[in-house]
Amino acid sequence: MPEFLKLLPPEEALNRFLDALGDTALMSAERIPTAQALDRVLAEDIIAPHDMPPFTRTTVDGYAVRAAETHGASASLPAYLRIIGEVSMGAQAEIKLQPHSAVLVHTGAMLPDGADAVIMLEDTDHAREGEVEIHRAAAVGDNVLNQGEDVRQGETVLDSGARLRPQEIGGLMGLGITEIAVRLKPAVGILSTGDEVVPPETSAGPGEVRDINTYTLSALVTRTGGDPVSHGIIPDRFEALLAAAREAHVRSDLVIITAGSSVSARDITADVITELGQPGVLVHGVTIRPGKPTILALAGSVPVIGLPGNPVSALVIAGLFVRPILQRLLGMTPPCINATIDARMSLNVASVAGREDYQAVRLVPDGEGFAAVPIFGRSNLIFTMIRADGLVRIPAQATGIAAGEHVQVIPLT
Amino acid sequence: MPEFLKLLPPEEALNRFLDALGDTALMSAERIPTAQALDRVLAEDIIAPHDMPPFTRTTVDGYAVRAAETHGASASLPAYLRIIGEVSMGAQAEIKLQPHSAVLVHTGAMLPDGADAVIMLEDTDHAREGEVEIHRAAAVGDNVLNQGEDVRQGETVLDSGARLRPQEIGGLMGLGITEIAVRLKPAVGILSTGDEVVPPETSAGPGEVRDINTYTLSALVTRTGGDPVSHGIIPDRFEALLAAAREAHVRSDLVIITAGSSVSARDITADVITELGQPGVLVHGVTIRPGKPTILALAGSVPVIGLPGNPVSALVIAGLFVRPILQRLLGMTPPCINATIDARMSLNVASVAGREDYQAVRLVPDGEGFAAVPIFGRSNLIFTMIRADGLVRIPAQATGIAAGEHVQVIPLT
Repeated sequence: MPEFLKLLPPEEALNRFLDALGDTALMSAERIPTAQALDRVLAEDIIAPHDMPPFTRTTVDGYAVRAAETHGASASLPAYLRIIGEVSMGAQAEIKLQPHSAVLVHTGAMLPDGADAVIMLEDTDHAREGEVEIHRAAAVGDNVLNQGEDVRQGETVLDSGARLRPQEIGGLMGLGITEIAVRLKPAVGILSTGDEVVPPETSAGPGEVRDINTYTLSALVTRTGGDPVSHGIIPDRFEALLAAAREAHVRSDLVIITAGSSVSARDITADVITELGQPGVLVHGVTIRPGKPTILALAGSVPVIGLPGNPVSALVIAGLFVRPILQRLLGMTPPCINATIDARMSLNVASVAGREDYQAVRLVPDGEGFAAVPIFGRSNLIFTMIRADGLVRIPAQATGIAAGEHVQVIPLT
Repeated sequence: MPEFLKLLPPEEALNRFLDALGDTALMSAERIPTAQALDRVLAEDIIAPHDMPPFTRTTVDGYAVRAAETHGASASLPAYLRIIGEVSMGAQAEIKLQPHSAVLVHTGAMLPDGADAVIMLEDTDHAREGEVEIHRAAAVGDNVLNQGEDVRQGETVLDSGARLRPQEIGGLMGLGITEIAVRLKPAVGILSTGDEVVPPETSAGPGEVRDINTYTLSALVTRTGGDPVSHGIIPDRFEALLAAAREAHVRSDLVIITAGSSVSARDITADVITELGQPGVLVHGVTIRPGKPTILALAGSVPVIGLPGNPVSALVIAGLFVRPILQRLLGMTPPCINATIDARMSLNVASVAGREDYQAVRLVPDGEGFAAVPIFGRSNLIFTMIRADGLVRIPAQATGIAAGEHVQVIPLT
């Protein structure tokens, strides 16, 4: 297999994999308190149990009136209405508007029956005892929030698959929906391989390097709504890696294996993934830099992703593949857009046609906008990613980006 | 005071407040495992304890050589070198390169003494037993990662104030720094006021509405790195609110009070904040829609922020003021840029000059880009924020945005 890689463009590779994955691996749901559901993915449609607002309210302090009775009113020719009472906050408006009358209301209070507009306090004056002088005509609905203007009873207000932002949490609470079904967080097993890799807490001897991938990938998984579980550092031997991968496979909803860096170690990774189950390896190799030796496989219904061993490649590729695959497991509606930063490239950056390149850049204020300053450095240098504010994608058909060209920087937040 | 509001532009309001705040309220530090520090703010400078990589490594599988000895080599006129051994992964390179020799190395392995370049396996062929045929000349440093090329021993690799992304966590682990000092999460006391406001789990009676602000603001605080603590729903009475605010003030690093919605309730909020301590109210009123009645105060060294009672205003204003103030308490280096989405406005949006407007929009794919479709609705309608993908800022000097104009949409993620 590794000798006959058919490299795929990244987008085609991802789509081919997601098509094969389908919905077979969708996480099951759990019910949790809405107040604890920030950034979780909804597993049910939410129907409004009642109108919101639940009653017609005033949006200002003032007098509830019939708009028609203020027709033509102005400061020089005011209208006069009899004040027949006041609506208390948080209570039923007991009072009913009579002809030629007005009711004092405070912002948020229920509008009394018969009223169809509110005149702001600032547009009124004291008249005779028990009377208000109105300096401005109102139209029907002025300063009024109608019952159901935000949401109608029975309306689907949120769809299954929505990721819950602060406003969704608030809207659900406003509707009295204090418990909801969300997707379980996918357990993501992470295996780091390489005979030269040692745990960070040990003092690395000559020829050894400390594990980085377990930690960058765990952090990325956490941020994407998964639950990372490290399965340790595995030596570059087929039997050892297969045993560890099988263990991870039965315990995880998704498995990530960072391949050892040598070609033979990468072959072992591919062979082990093939052993885990059918349909096996669906994508082996992507036309991308950094990250060519990426593997996307499916063992039963569990996605298994083989990432390049070097930390920069592993992190860039995880952003491009692990993130959308996790979102699919969560049944999450993909975000329609990804925000970027417009900048001008400060230097020429060369690229090879037929391969998508991701170039790390720093953003430097530059007159009205930003200059994207490329951070040159090989893909093994994790600190190039630390010095970077974002990545610039150089499309496969381009042979580079000229200094001064506008680029859209993908933020590394 | 409320009668004589001097409204300030939002940026001036924030800067005036941050100047007064200074560094007096900087959170103290705690030491935690680096692996658990995602999105925390570093409270110390990090100095590299050793070079990274810690030794000179090969980035490919191939033969370590002296570049000079491959001079002029090509497929038609190969160079021949004696193979004198192999470097094991994760081990000291025991072998030393002799004149006219080569050493087999695997990606990531230590370069043997005397070698200054690596020839990729693909550019070699088998020759006589114990000899390699070299088809390509190497320059010094080819396919080699030098010791310290990423980071030099003694170099400051991260500054106090950095927010830790996946790559920072990985870089620290790579350096063997498994524990670090980060800022404590600020405790943020949240008070929701209003006689009409009831807890979400109760069935709201006539004239009552359920609390939304406690939950949207808690979620926003959590996302910004704070620890939200709800102090409940407080009625619109001076004594009750003062007692609750004093309680929150002694227990919190920052206090947020969402004002009752009526003018008199807002006055009570302002009066209570003034009572909490010196220097007191620094900003009262901001030229912004939604959110004019914003209060920024300092009671001792504790920031107290009064937000408008209506949920949309409260959330928008919290994004503009609570977030940067929390970042200041955390000693966080402000992000140099905020990513936006370029879009074209689909409709004319009017605005009042002299006031900054934030218009909620949906983003709809539109040929090559996006149309920003304004979501009209009053600022009390929380579901306008749920239907929204982002906000468009209409500057104070503008009187609106014309249909077709390019805008930068601030994503509501």
